Amino acid sequence: MPDPSLSLVELEQLLERIFLNHGTSQDVARSLAANCAAAQRDGAHSHGVFRMPGYLSSLASGWVDGRAVPLVEDIASGYVSVDAAGGFAQPALQAARALLVSKARSAGIAVLAIRNSHHFAALWPDVEPFAREGLVALSVVNSMTCVVPHGASKPLFGTNPIAFAAPCEGRDPVVFDMATSALAHGDVQIAAREGRQVPPGSGVDRDGQPTTDPAAILHGGALLPFGAHKGSALSMMVELLSAALTGGHFSFEFDWSRHPGAQTPWTGQLIIVIDPAKSPGHGFAGRCRELVERMHEVGQARLSGDRRYRAREMADREGIRLTPEHLQQLQAMAAGVG
Amino acid sequence: MPDPSLSLVELEQLLERIFLNHGTSQDVARSLAANCAAAQRDGAHSHGVFRMPGYLSSLASGWVDGRAVPLVEDIASGYVSVDAAGGFAQPALQAARALLVSKARSAGIAVLAIRNSHHFAALWPDVEPFAREGLVALSVVNSMTCVVPHGASKPLFGTNPIAFAAPCEGRDPVVFDMATSALAHGDVQIAAREGRQVPPGSGVDRDGQPTTDPAAILHGGALLPFGAHKGSALSMMVELLSAALTGGHFSFEFDWSRHPGAQTPWTGQLIIVIDPAKSPGHGFAGRCRELVERMHEVGQARLSGDRRYRAREMADREGIRLTPEHLQQLQAMAAGVG
Repeated sequence: MPDPSLSLVELEQLLERIFLNHGTSQDVARSLAANCAAAQRDGAHSHGVFRMPGYLSSLASGWVDGRAVPLVEDIASGYVSVDAAGGFAQPALQAARALLVSKARSAGIAVLAIRNSHHFAALWPDVEPFAREGLVALSVVNSMTCVVPHGASKPLFGTNPIAFAAPCEGRDPVVFDMATSALAHGDVQIAAREGRQVPPGSGVDRDGQPTTDPAAILHGGALLPFGAHKGSALSMMVELLSAALTGGHFSFEFDWSRHPGAQTPWTGQLIIVIDPAKSPGHGFAGRCRELVERMHEVGQARLSGDRRYRAREMADREGIRLTPEHLQQLQAMAAGVG
Repeated sequence: MPDPSLSLVELEQLLERIFLNHGTSQDVARSLAANCAAAQRDGAHSHGVFRMPGYLSSLASGWVDGRAVPLVEDIASGYVSVDAAGGFAQPALQAARALLVSKARSAGIAVLAIRNSHHFAALWPDVEPFAREGLVALSVVNSMTCVVPHGASKPLFGTNPIAFAAPCEGRDPVVFDMATSALAHGDVQIAAREGRQVPPGSGVDRDGQPTTDPAAILHGGALLPFGAHKGSALSMMVELLSAALTGGHFSFEFDWSRHPGAQTPWTGQLIIVIDPAKSPGHGFAGRCRELVERMHEVGQARLSGDRRYRAREMADREGIRLTPEHLQQLQAMAAGVG
């Protein structure tokens, strides 16, 4: 018998029930469920239903406020700020999104600075929708201390991803979402769970020695930046933009030790949106298509987001497959016993 | 006898005379001389006086217009566009700079899109001055086809650097300027000239085979992106922002073969400037200092721009040292026989 499969809407509704059942508001439940279901649909398993126990455990710990109401501040013609009030970043983005888009279309560029927020999800779901509206978006978010700066001996930075999305004529938007660490934290967790080694150069153990054992990285060890000093400099930039600029916390500034079960980093997030319609000359999306065509011509078969689009297409056709155990676990969570 | 040394002003004046003597306008001469002298002073030799023959040869070829007058367009409250009119990017930035800063201070964020421009210099001199005025700046510029996209077999991207600058309380701004290729083009040229090998993973030869011979990379070979697929995705982003968004040319779109001696890439440049005074909470520069102090505490002795600051300090004290041969070569250029 094949694994059970759900439509995107069915999975969203199931996850929404789980969040509601664990004390979040309707807005928060909808926003987190949409993000998590989209990741599962796109085969981005490290940010899919795999994350649900971490969400629930963080909510139960009192570390994150599942009923927080974000406070949107209209600062200037290109600047929106949101105090997420100790809640998640995704509902904060939703609350400010329309204002951000309207400013970007009017000023040509606008920035959204989210602070006092928890981000526990993939970053591409935050930027891809802007590209579907014809806008270019760049976002950074810091996380929790687990990456050793290049040349240092102890961890300080988070995995600090950078995500980018741009509209592309005749195809899905060009989107990437990269940890500035050698590996994303979720991928290390999944490798540990599955008993796989991680590639050399990914991390160090508790003594600062190179290791390929994901458990040694997770328990007292740390990750390394990707691309040595360059990835490390980008990670520093992410700290400055996500925390210093927004008024949020650096990855090393919070301490969840008094909240057993807490897993969500309490930091900040920055999103820059540009309206390419302001650009002179040729249309941006057509130019993007030209670049992608040339990338294919020189032999780059697929772009970084294309694996997600292929998984999405299959899920749209055949549903989102879950193992019977996963589905049962989710149903138990929705019933309040998970 | 020690090598001759010049003050920054003396070197700027010498370089300015050279540019004027080779047909540039006063504005262009001043702007390029300041950039090139600053690179030499800071020990950034791949963009210092080493570049002068390339500038002059490009000017002589008629490929770049040394007397171009940039046309500044005030597009929207956060958007400035400049048609560099086939001239250099630095005078285009100078022409639009005051408007860009005023928009960033008013809107909170502003973008400058330069097109139809030649950039043959380091990128950090373009961003560092914004940080000295208390602003955060991010710039990207594409260049000329010499980098193989990750997973491809032929070069397509340029070295496509990303530069970032942020004000930092009690010290020089935090600045980085990184090629998204494994090495900057100038560093490969210098290695070739000095007969040194480049690190493994930097490039391929004309048959697409890995090589550490800089000559094999320069003659028919190509560079690789830094950090595999991640650096490659960033390089793609730089093409999109610098060329597609500005209305400029992609790195693969120009052909200087009919202009013997031409070396300057004819592309575009994007600069995003953010005013952190719009940020709620603590002052940005103080928060930046906190991060840098913590980076030192965990063992990162110096940041990526610090080597330049140390060289600058020494040059301010002892002058900028040039070999007698270099000084003679520059003086000959200034006299019109170089």
